[in-house]
Amino acid sequence: MEIDRNNQVWGGIEAGGTKFVCGLADASGRLLDEVRFPTTNPEQTLARAIEYFRPYSETGRLVAVGIGSFGPIDPNPDSPTYGFITSTPKPGWQQTDFAGAIARALDTPVAFDTDTNAAGEGEHRWGAARDLDTFLYLTVGTGIGGGGMARGRRLRGLVHPEMGHVIVPRVAGDDFPGICPFHGDCLEGMVSGPALKARVGRSAEEVAGDDPLWQIVAHYLSAAIANYVYVLSPQRIILGGGVMRRQELFALIRERVGQWLGGYVQSDLVLNRLDDYIVPPALGERAGVLGAVALALGAGTELRQSRNIRP
Amino acid sequence: MEIDRNNQVWGGIEAGGTKFVCGLADASGRLLDEVRFPTTNPEQTLARAIEYFRPYSETGRLVAVGIGSFGPIDPNPDSPTYGFITSTPKPGWQQTDFAGAIARALDTPVAFDTDTNAAGEGEHRWGAARDLDTFLYLTVGTGIGGGGMARGRRLRGLVHPEMGHVIVPRVAGDDFPGICPFHGDCLEGMVSGPALKARVGRSAEEVAGDDPLWQIVAHYLSAAIANYVYVLSPQRIILGGGVMRRQELFALIRERVGQWLGGYVQSDLVLNRLDDYIVPPALGERAGVLGAVALALGAGTELRQSRNIRP
Repeated sequence: MEIDRNNQVWGGIEAGGTKFVCGLADASGRLLDEVRFPTTNPEQTLARAIEYFRPYSETGRLVAVGIGSFGPIDPNPDSPTYGFITSTPKPGWQQTDFAGAIARALDTPVAFDTDTNAAGEGEHRWGAARDLDTFLYLTVGTGIGGGGMARGRRLRGLVHPEMGHVIVPRVAGDDFPGICPFHGDCLEGMVSGPALKARVGRSAEEVAGDDPLWQIVAHYLSAAIANYVYVLSPQRIILGGGVMRRQELFALIRERVGQWLGGYVQSDLVLNRLDDYIVPPALGERAGVLGAVALALGAGTELRQSRNIRP
Repeated sequence: MEIDRNNQVWGGIEAGGTKFVCGLADASGRLLDEVRFPTTNPEQTLARAIEYFRPYSETGRLVAVGIGSFGPIDPNPDSPTYGFITSTPKPGWQQTDFAGAIARALDTPVAFDTDTNAAGEGEHRWGAARDLDTFLYLTVGTGIGGGGMARGRRLRGLVHPEMGHVIVPRVAGDDFPGICPFHGDCLEGMVSGPALKARVGRSAEEVAGDDPLWQIVAHYLSAAIANYVYVLSPQRIILGGGVMRRQELFALIRERVGQWLGGYVQSDLVLNRLDDYIVPPALGERAGVLGAVALALGAGTELRQSRNIRP
């Protein structure tokens, strides 16, 4: 890696349940370096992240670190457990003070939010949500999750959105029970990557593009998306994640979202230009780590009131 | 009506598809006077509203007017059609410059939003959403609609929420087709007041409290509410409107929302205190008109950029 030693850098951690991606970028979102490693236990995994950023904090070049994390998390800066991964089913990670550990070890401000809110922040700053203040970022992969902004502020409230767990009506005749341990046949239970694998007995990546499976996937995702439109009235919906790498899904989903909405939402974008309304991430595979960097860029203002994170 | 002639007053218009309620209040939300009249054509109806407020504008006592309107509307102050009722199915009201007509006739600032966002604003200022920044206000009556705030700002985006039209899974064996002209069996099509009347052949007010009808109503409303929780993570959900006057519905809905969520949302409020999470409007029957007054109280800051509404 070559970085001009006088230049400031911002760090990003895309913290997934399977792997961590750590990166460094300049203020324009140019990714200067990136490293990936598996998510094991918190001690080991956070130590690797800290080790990666330490040379930049020691030389005073690291301005802040942003973390887009798997969850559930506590994203509320006013809360005593702000920055924690909370009740996650992932073994060993419950009640982990993720943001605090990074901030103390590197003596740097840390911004912390869900993985999808982080990806949304990146798309807002540099990608498909530029100039929009109300939008959704949905990831469809190992799990299904959603984030984004309402009126220019990242979504959170009682806790944070859990859009993957919405209840959706079944395709007539579909008797797949779903695999969500909490709900069975919620959206994630029906069409996450592992749900598709359980459904067809092999990885969805091996299923042909014209297989009826994709009609089923489009049914459930489009019903959920229509409901997101009714609840939040987003100006755009960005669909990322491993399952959405299957590009032909976009056309199927757009068509069905139009059918579900039934002409009710009177907006040219929804009525006539769904290809400009439901889109892939402009930052592509880097939406996660650049989203975390985007959080870091906002860290100064975000973290003033927080518990244990320096301003 | 007796109002100290030196005191300033704020006007509110609760504009429903069936009736208008106009009221005057002081800055503390004390309702000083109120008038109701049927919603006929726009010329006649707006003239009656203007006539009601004119003595207060002429004497310089009327600071601003807030309007909580049936829709669809354009609630975006940056839009050229801000303040219009737009594509409503209500005959004669399409493309009506509601806020503009009131502002010009009374020469006063006007704040304009959906009926449910207005009611939410009122509950935020004086009622069940005080000290909360992310919450929902849902009305279940002639229609079903939802509004509220995310991170302290009233919900809007591409247009505004249309929460009544969400897709919900059917109760097993329920073959009622639904009455929504756009979607048939969306939430509003299944359990709005008119839907219940179509379902049982008489007004829902005449149906006994232990009738199985209320189990069906609770099923659909609770499924929708669980989805709202997953999408927005509200800190509280306020349920108003004619159908919700049936108080026993609250217990049925709370129980089923808990079942739908399945213990997934880790919050004491949702896990153990649903009676403090899903509540009636604190402003009761006055939530609509006081909500409109609450909009008026914020009119100075809201309307700076707007098209034809004086600052």
